[in-house]
Amino acid sequence: MPGHVACTAPAERDVLQTGFNKRDRILKAILDPEATTREKLEQARAAAPQLASLSTEQKNEILREMAAALESRTAEILAANQKDLTESNLEGPLRDRLLLTCERIDAIVQGLRDVANLPDPVGKTVAEWDRPNGLKIRKMTVPLGVLGVIFESRPNVTVDAVALAIKSGNAIVLRGGKEAAHSNRSLVAILTSVRGLPEGAIRLLDSSSRASVQELIAARGLVDVIIPRGGSGLIEHVVTNSKVPVIETGAGNCHIFVDNSADFDMAERIILNAKTQRPSVCNAAEKVLIHHAIAEEFTPRIVKKLIECGVEVRADAEATRLSSGLPVQGATEKDWGEEYLCLCLAIRIVAGVEEAIAHINHYSTKHSEVIVTSDEERARRFLRGIDSAAVYWNASTRFSDGSEFGFGAEMGISTQKLHCRGPFALAELTSTKYEVFGTGQIR
Amino acid sequence: MPGHVACTAPAERDVLQTGFNKRDRILKAILDPEATTREKLEQARAAAPQLASLSTEQKNEILREMAAALESRTAEILAANQKDLTESNLEGPLRDRLLLTCERIDAIVQGLRDVANLPDPVGKTVAEWDRPNGLKIRKMTVPLGVLGVIFESRPNVTVDAVALAIKSGNAIVLRGGKEAAHSNRSLVAILTSVRGLPEGAIRLLDSSSRASVQELIAARGLVDVIIPRGGSGLIEHVVTNSKVPVIETGAGNCHIFVDNSADFDMAERIILNAKTQRPSVCNAAEKVLIHHAIAEEFTPRIVKKLIECGVEVRADAEATRLSSGLPVQGATEKDWGEEYLCLCLAIRIVAGVEEAIAHINHYSTKHSEVIVTSDEERARRFLRGIDSAAVYWNASTRFSDGSEFGFGAEMGISTQKLHCRGPFALAELTSTKYEVFGTGQIR
Repeated sequence: MPGHVACTAPAERDVLQTGFNKRDRILKAILDPEATTREKLEQARAAAPQLASLSTEQKNEILREMAAALESRTAEILAANQKDLTESNLEGPLRDRLLLTCERIDAIVQGLRDVANLPDPVGKTVAEWDRPNGLKIRKMTVPLGVLGVIFESRPNVTVDAVALAIKSGNAIVLRGGKEAAHSNRSLVAILTSVRGLPEGAIRLLDSSSRASVQELIAARGLVDVIIPRGGSGLIEHVVTNSKVPVIETGAGNCHIFVDNSADFDMAERIILNAKTQRPSVCNAAEKVLIHHAIAEEFTPRIVKKLIECGVEVRADAEATRLSSGLPVQGATEKDWGEEYLCLCLAIRIVAGVEEAIAHINHYSTKHSEVIVTSDEERARRFLRGIDSAAVYWNASTRFSDGSEFGFGAEMGISTQKLHCRGPFALAELTSTKYEVFGTGQIR
Repeated sequence: MPGHVACTAPAERDVLQTGFNKRDRILKAILDPEATTREKLEQARAAAPQLASLSTEQKNEILREMAAALESRTAEILAANQKDLTESNLEGPLRDRLLLTCERIDAIVQGLRDVANLPDPVGKTVAEWDRPNGLKIRKMTVPLGVLGVIFESRPNVTVDAVALAIKSGNAIVLRGGKEAAHSNRSLVAILTSVRGLPEGAIRLLDSSSRASVQELIAARGLVDVIIPRGGSGLIEHVVTNSKVPVIETGAGNCHIFVDNSADFDMAERIILNAKTQRPSVCNAAEKVLIHHAIAEEFTPRIVKKLIECGVEVRADAEATRLSSGLPVQGATEKDWGEEYLCLCLAIRIVAGVEEAIAHINHYSTKHSEVIVTSDEERARRFLRGIDSAAVYWNASTRFSDGSEFGFGAEMGISTQKLHCRGPFALAELTSTKYEVFGTGQIR
């Protein structure tokens, strides 16, 4: 198998150059020593027009070749990942986030094939109209150009982001976490080795220092959008310092309001699912607000259930009183604004839907909120009144996800209002262009 | 006429308080001394949900009342404007930009009524679908929240921006140029005096120093988008320093490429219109590229015409040679990237459409570009290959304008790719929200 590397940890340079035979490798090393961040950004910029001009079939073929290349070189990826695991010495969930297995690589490969099968978001006519002066105006979708994606230690993000970038005709510059440096280099070396991919389409930045992040977010004119994926510290840093437009993702202080007309079984099912099914993700629930009229009955019931499921419950004074005998902690002001990302949840008793709306609009991160109610009018008031990306009536917050929404993939969940809001994938990685057809019109 | 002030220059405090009787005025001055920038931003934020909940008819009624108020208080506005003109001591085009006349106020008033007659961009269903698990997802348009608009000396921008903000259900914070301080205070005092407008919906920031700009562009959480309108220095400052998402507007280094198959009369008409009809605006043409095969015939012809129209022509070596005997200046590298905004234009001879595309994508500000050709295949190549907001085949760049596009108004022309690109108005002042309808679904 040409270019295949045995399942040992290869030297960095070798990982990067895998896919070339030895003579090519030496030649390339001479002609192209490790490029600087600036050079990589320029290479991506130069590749953007070529990516924009690829046909749907060409893009799909590239994605399918990438899937095949990852499959055939799984051992090489696992070796690089092993090196990361050894060097980083992480434990528990952090190690798990970094870990690649054959099964996980299979899922990544399947993800590439799924994206190949999705419709092409580029070249669509969004609107078309004629003006009284005879001008014909057509608004069509075009690639954004160059995406800059900054993320942490999950190496699957590397492939997911590349797949969405290529399908949407964009070049991509990746800056992953330093713990995953070997894994990412291996993945990118394999992805860039496929036939038909324009030179410069994928560039991986150095992850050993913050310098590459700084340079990336300052690169106006070279990069068209920055997408930070990761913890709130990373996102805050990028949003407040970037000179390139940003799609802010992620933080989710999500709420569930249990109205007095709620079906208690349904409310309990939704709360337990939203809190415990995967507590470390942004669409997990962090707060429960309970209508005062049902608080006496519902509060001890849900608190007991949550505690049985291993959840640490914090409660306002009234909820604490109603949970007497159960081990709840008092909630402080800080709790209402916090995204726990673990098996912890805070409960507050509210006077009704209006207070629930006011509380949520004040404290939430504008991600996903739920009302559980059998009262349609109140549900509508909640849906309209809440200023968040996704507002649910009788369903779990956990559905705020590109795949669950039916997009077939996800680049992130936008919590800002500009460009896109909520789960986003291919369509949101495009911009538009006006093509105007005239016959010599002047003003 | 209650609240009407005679056509003299009133004291600042009086202008601000116009619309209240004397007792109210004194009371208000005691209770509400001039708010700080921070307070004004918080007032706008607090007003946002109220604006979002106004019905279409309520918003239109507010706009019509604003139009009537400006009409009935024209003398007051003119007096304030006179004060600005006297204090600023500007001359020529700068004075003209600041100047208000009865006719100009009539046009501003008509603009308000036009916006009242446009369709409501809020509450529209963008998409709606069902998921296999029974969830119903609806994507609907919602207001952005709080707009921050930073502009220079044209006082009509104040009213245009307010009209678009109110119609799209947004609160607005305005920071105008200091030369127009009295005019803007007068206009905002009148606009905020109308019945039904939520308190805090319109806030005018202090224009005496840059401090308010700095505070506005740092106000993440209070302001949802910053729209800078003005010269490239202002826009550059805002784009590189804002922590709030920005819609970058304006700079236009627009090109016209005359292909070898162009109709010379049409090319001449388009070039003269695009350069001379209003040279100070961003959609005026700044560069002409000529196909080498027709350069010998077309270059001296267009250079002669341009010079006759008072245009200063700069030319590359070849165009200079072909213009022998005509007073052209040599173009330098700096010329190709420059937005002149005056009766000046640079000409370059290119090998063909590919070189034209490469030149434009390298030097343009990605605003508006034109190909004049009778060759459809070449026109398509140009339309696809150019990476600008608007690309024209056989029409003047001057059509890049919200009204000319049929939007009925314009907030600006976006030269970035995120959120919106090209002329934008009401639709682009909205975001979206997902409403998800369930029956107890969990993951």
